[in-house]
Order: sequence, then structure tokens, then C-alpha cells
Amino acid sequence: MTYETLQYEVEDGLLTLRLNRPEQMNAFTVTMAHELEAAYARASADDAVRAIVVTGAGKAFCAGMDLSTGGNVFGLDESQRPTPADLADRFDDPAIQQGVRDTGGRVALAMVNCLKPIVGAINGAAVGIGATMTLPMDFRFASEKARFGFVFGRLGITPEACSSWFLPRIVGLEQALEWTYRADIFDAREAHAKGLVRAVTSPETLLDEASAFARSLITERSPVSVALIRQMMLRHLSATPLEAHRAESLAMFYTSVGDGKEGVKAFLEKRPPQFAAHASDMPPVFPEG
Amino acid sequence: MTYETLQYEVEDGLLTLRLNRPEQMNAFTVTMAHELEAAYARASADDAVRAIVVTGAGKAFCAGMDLSTGGNVFGLDESQRPTPADLADRFDDPAIQQGVRDTGGRVALAMVNCLKPIVGAINGAAVGIGATMTLPMDFRFASEKARFGFVFGRLGITPEACSSWFLPRIVGLEQALEWTYRADIFDAREAHAKGLVRAVTSPETLLDEASAFARSLITERSPVSVALIRQMMLRHLSATPLEAHRAESLAMFYTSVGDGKEGVKAFLEKRPPQFAAHASDMPPVFPEG
Amino acid sequence: MTYETLQYEVEDGLLTLRLNRPEQMNAFTVTMAHELEAAYARASADDAVRAIVVTGAGKAFCAGMDLSTGGNVFGLDESQRPTPADLADRFDDPAIQQGVRDTGGRVALAMVNCLKPIVGAINGAAVGIGATMTLPMDFRFASEKARFGFVFGRLGITPEACSSWFLPRIVGLEQALEWTYRADIFDAREAHAKGLVRAVTSPETLLDEASAFARSLITERSPVSVALIRQMMLRHLSATPLEAHRAESLAMFYTSVGDGKEGVKAFLEKRPPQFAAHASDMPPVFPEG
Repeated sequence: MTYETLQYEVEDGLLTLRLNRPEQMNAFTVTMAHELEAAYARASADDAVRAIVVTGAGKAFCAGMDLSTGGNVFGLDESQRPTPADLADRFDDPAIQQGVRDTGGRVALAMVNCLKPIVGAINGAAVGIGATMTLPMDFRFASEKARFGFVFGRLGITPEACSSWFLPRIVGLEQALEWTYRADIFDAREAHAKGLVRAVTSPETLLDEASAFARSLITERSPVSVALIRQMMLRHLSATPLEAHRAESLAMFYTSVGDGKEGVKAFLEKRPPQFAAHASDMPPVFPEG
Repeated sequence: MTYETLQYEVEDGLLTLRLNRPEQMNAFTVTMAHELEAAYARASADDAVRAIVVTGAGKAFCAGMDLSTGGNVFGLDESQRPTPADLADRFDDPAIQQGVRDTGGRVALAMVNCLKPIVGAINGAAVGIGATMTLPMDFRFASEKARFGFVFGRLGITPEACSSWFLPRIVGLEQALEWTYRADIFDAREAHAKGLVRAVTSPETLLDEASAFARSLITERSPVSVALIRQMMLRHLSATPLEAHRAESLAMFYTSVGDGKEGVKAFLEKRPPQFAAHASDMPPVFPEG
Repeated sequence: MTYETLQYEVEDGLLTLRLNRPEQMNAFTVTMAHELEAAYARASADDAVRAIVVTGAGKAFCAGMDLSTGGNVFGLDESQRPTPADLADRFDDPAIQQGVRDTGGRVALAMVNCLKPIVGAINGAAVGIGATMTLPMDFRFASEKARFGFVFGRLGITPEACSSWFLPRIVGLEQALEWTYRADIFDAREAHAKGLVRAVTSPETLLDEASAFARSLITERSPVSVALIRQMMLRHLSATPLEAHRAESLAMFYTSVGDGKEGVKAFLEKRPPQFAAHASDMPPVFPEG
């Protein structure tokens, strides 16, 4: 599988996913949206991938939507007049899929559904969709040269890519409102101070630090356990304690008869575990899939 | 339209809404509740209002419910015995509307539904409903003289005005429990340290700072974009990522064929945008309205 | 009522609940799960209990699941193959109740439903279920000797006891993911820095400080008001503002005709209130109970 806009390289369990339009500051296109959606789904399903690091080729991470294309620059079908009922009832209709659904949101939902931890190595400008596509990542590292901007309001448009769901949960409602109302560019220092990124590194060490961190999360871990942790934490942000209890019961049940057997045995024998289960064979834990 | 308990002044897009019972420390009454509910609805619908600053006349912001009235001081009809089913099924029944619904909550929901950013300029005592009515604001500035108290527990009653929804989301569950269990008065410094207010100012500069901040959010912005940002951020705190994606898709769709056309054009031409859409003409983005 | 694994001592309104298997580092067993579930339900129903402090006998708080038992160490019935539909539709079926439901989650839900504030005095190792069982507490104090570990991932199993619901809400999504992916042991200092515990004390003063704090929350307070505050704050973390408004309306209604009468009267007469209502006689505020 080849990509026009991405590099996809797996080494020793770690996928390095690189936005790869360096001449265009990795500006986002409909093609990039489809390729990112497919790449996250592929990585989620591939047992050879245990964790993912995402970065940009060249100077920028992603400078936002490519506004140089003709027609509707966001790839939307302007002949339609969709309603909330259409989005609920006709979600799988190709006219809605291709002509109405936010392309950034398609990428974000693929990241939400991904069974592997995702670590951002934000190397430069992350503006518009370049900023919002980092929010479904588990962890965000930024270079000192990174810049962020939820600039939608300046263009008369609105935040997307599930950012209205993620941003207030990551930095709080007030900060989310301030950044999106203001629509300014801010630097890595502010992003760190407000909790958007976990660390600011030198440009030279960014990818190594992010990759080492990603590797540290998966060594001697059960891929099924890691996948379930990720899915439970994300899904239960919009669940009740009882719903969480039901899914946790099933997750504990199936891991206790799966990798948990080896895990407990190895613990009692004071040796490293040898886990055998695969994330591609997930137990039935969540309603509707 | 005139108000008994409020001042409502619009200048250059900014509504200054002032609680105006200074002799009574702006104590909250049923009349004030109805006037606030109406004032927020009016401001939400009026395209001449782009943002709202809320403050109090005189020394206090709002010293809480006026306990000097006769009968049920909260304005409730004590002859009823309402149930959760009544509140769900008979919500629009006048007996429930007038005799059972929490008056502070009516104001809070009008603030939640408001299409304009709301900035608090908390000039003095903000106690009981005076504290809880600040929570649905987007941003809270406080004078050094401000005092806060979620004092309901001392009176044998309970937090209201949607504060059991907002407070844990603003300051975290533990702090919300502590303040409401304790029911003490605390000062602006503690409010700032715990994230309840964004800044503490001198009494003299409070209103100017809050107003300048409010203006900075709306200059060269699309009113529709601002309104959608506010509604998406608030609503998606109790939504799933998929629900957020559906609303975001529609918001992006309709702004991309509306003010977004001008926004992108102005951006490419490196000039300030001239947005034409009005918040009074909102696109169909959210289920049920 | 006697307990094999707990001490249950009530003095002057304060229940001190002590995990009591000191020779086994208070390791968690199915018996302890059932006793904790019953003890929280008992304390919730008993008007003589106004607040709860939870601690461990001996050096540890709770060193995790007792892995020395035979068969399925988590007490699960390995002959079953439960599905999400089973957990939803057959939740009360004894086969699900006893053989599938996560025992830690049973304890956590009993804590969620409890009508009294719960304060943790975490005196030593709190690992696995020993860590997750502290999350539904209102407040967590830790001794300098406390250690924490969400170590499930090392054993090939998954977080439980509603921790996938609580942990991201207490310390944020990113920190919750990091601690559960890493599955390392960390000390009280880190727990405090990241917001998991509110204070770190000397081992000698821990229980006194936690108990004094618990007492400070209930003195001159209405037990019904306290119970409603706790339930509203917890439940409305997964509710909409409108749902919060409905419950708040009923809570305000029934307290305003109950302890609120005395509370307002005492306030106006500038004397301490004498509240008469009991938490064992809760008004109908929430849907389904």
C-alpha cells in the first residue's frame, strides 16, 4: 500500500506516520484525509504495529487545510442542504459520507477507534486541522519550533475533527473557548503551560523522545490489555459509571482467561510475561461492536 | 423594554448587563430571575449584541437569594409533591414551570442557550445564586473585593442553577464537593488559585478589563461562527465523539458555504474579512433545534 | 454485623472503615469485595453515620488482588462467554452477578451510591484494586509512605472498579492513560503533584487529619443536603444541563420545604440551625430511584 501524502514506516512494533507534503507545509487535502483515515485503520488492525508516532516531514507539522484548491476547499457538496436528521439517519449514505461529513472528523474518529497508543511529535506549525488532528492522540510532544492555532473563527468557519469534543476535555472549557474564539497562533510554551502538550523538546531530539516514550508504553505489555485500556478511557468519557462497570467486567473477564493467566503466572514466578493474545482478536467488551 | 432589577445597555456590539438592586446587595428575587432569563434570550436573538459583560451595581455582585420575602422564599409552590417523572413529562406544564422549576436554573439554561459569549465582571460578593449564576459564563474576571460562597449547605438546601453540572467541570469534582460541602465564603485569590476565575483585577479596572476582553473575541469574527463555537463546546461536554462529529460536519458545511467563503477569500487576499451572516439566522446543526 | 476482612467503627457520626488483613497487606479477596459492598450500603442507610474515613490496618492500604488463591483469582466463572448484551439484559441474573461482574466495580458502585462523604486515609501501598478503590472517594489523603500503582497492564489484565470512568475525570485523560499504560508504582509525591491525592501527611498524623477534615464537612449541616450534593455532583458528570436542572429543581423544592425552612430561619435569627431531616428518608430527586 502506497500513499501520496504520507510515509508509513513500521520498525520493531512502532509505526512512524509522517505527513509528507513538505513543499506545501503538509497542508491538508481530501486525499490526505482519506489516507490518514485508512492508515489509522490499517495500523489498528495490524498486529505488527504496537504504537504510533505521528510527525510532519520538513518544517511544518501541518499548516492547515490547503486553501489553494478550486470549488469548495473543504471538499463538500454544496448542492446539498443536510439536516441533523440526515446525519443521524443517512450517515452511511454516500452523499452524506462524501459530500457532507467533515473530513477532519473522519480522521479523528479513525484515531478514536484505533487500538494502539498514538503519540504526537509536533515538529512545526500545527494550524487549523493541523492543530485539531493532534487532539485524539494519547500524548503530544512539541518541538520548541511548534506553533498552534485553532484559527477557524478567522475564516468564518468552525472547529472540526471532533475538536469541540476533545479540546475542552484536554484543556478545560474556558481555555477551549478562548483559543477558538481568539483564533490566534500561539507557541509551544503556551501550549505546554495550558496542558495541550506534555513536553517541549529541541527540534533535534523531538522524534527520538516521542518514539522512546511510545516504546516504553508497550514493552512487556499485552496488546489486548493496551487496546482495552485505550478504548475504555476514551469511551467512558461519555458514559455512566454503570456503563463503565459493564465494559470493565467484560474486559476483566476476557483478559483474566486470556493474557491475564500468563501475567499472573509470570508475576508469581518473578519473570517477564510472554503474552500471546493479539489486538486483532479483541474480546466482545463494548455494546455495538 | 424596561427592567425592575437590571440595567441593559448595548454599545458598539457589547451588552453590559448590570444587576441593579444595589441597596439590597443585588439580592436575587423571582422577578430578577424572570428578567435575567428574558434578557439573555433577548441578547441571544439581537444581532446588535455580539458579546455580553455581566456585573453588579454598587458594592456587591449578588449577595444571594433575597430571604426577606414571605412564603416560600425561593418562589416555589409548596402545595405540590413533584416527582422526577413530572419534571420529565410535564416540564412545560405551568404548574411545574412556575411552581417547581428552580429559578436559578431557568437563568442558567438561558445562558447555556445564548449565542453570544458571556464575560463576568464580578465586582463584589457573589454568594449562593450570586456564585452559581456565574458558572455558565464563558469567562469570569473578579475584583480583588469579590467574595464567593456556595453556601447552600449552611441553609439546609442544595446547589442550583445547573451548578452541579458546571462546577465540577470547571474546577474538578473534588474542589466542587469541597466548596459545596463546606459552604464557606472564600476570596478572589482562592477563586483564582482553584480556577474559578481567570484573573483578579483592581476594583477600578475590572469592568474595563472584562469589556476589552469581550471585545477582543468578536472583532473581525463571524457572529455565526462564534455562536456555533459556543454551542458546540457546551453541548459536546455531554455528547459522544460521533455526536460531535455530526454537529461539526453540519457547522462546517453551512459556514463553508456562508461566511467561510468570504473568510477564505479575505485570507487569500490578505485583507480583513467582511462577514455578512447573522446569528439570528443559525444553520440547522444540532438535533432538536 | 461482623466482618472477616474489615473493621467498622462508628464514633460521633464518623465511620472509620479499616481494611483488616494486615498480615496479607490487606490484599483484596472476593470476601472483602462483598464485605466492602455491604459496609458502604450499611453506612449509606445508617443515619448514625454522617461521613466515612477509609484506611488500612498495618503497613499497607491494600496491596491489590490476592493472587494466592486457586482457580480464577478474580473470582470469575470461566465456563461462561458473556457478551455486552448479557451485561445489559441479564445484569441481575445470578450467573452474571456472581460469575461475571467485576468485584471491584461492585464496591465502586456501592461507593458511588453512598449518601455520605467518603475520605481516604491512604496509609501505605495502594496497588491494583487498592488504587482503583480510592477513586470513588470524595477526597484522598496520603501518608508519605503511600505508594500507588495502576498495574493491571503488567498482568495482562485491565483497569476495573469503574476506574476507567473515574481516573480520567480526576487527573485528566492523558495522565490516566499514562499511568495505566505504564503500570508502574509511583509515590505519594507524584500522586499529589498530578492531583490524585489532595495532601501528603506524616504517617502519624494521617488518620487524624483525614478524620478532622471529614468532620469539618458535616458539622451543622443537613444530612439530606450533604447526600443530595454528593449524588448530584457525581451523577451530573454524565448528564446534560437540562437533566441537572430537573434534579436540582426537585432537590431545591424538597429541601426548601424541609431542612431549608429551619436553615433560612436560623440564618435570619443568626443562630446555628437544628436540622431534623434524615438521609435515610431522601426526597424523590433522581429518575429511577
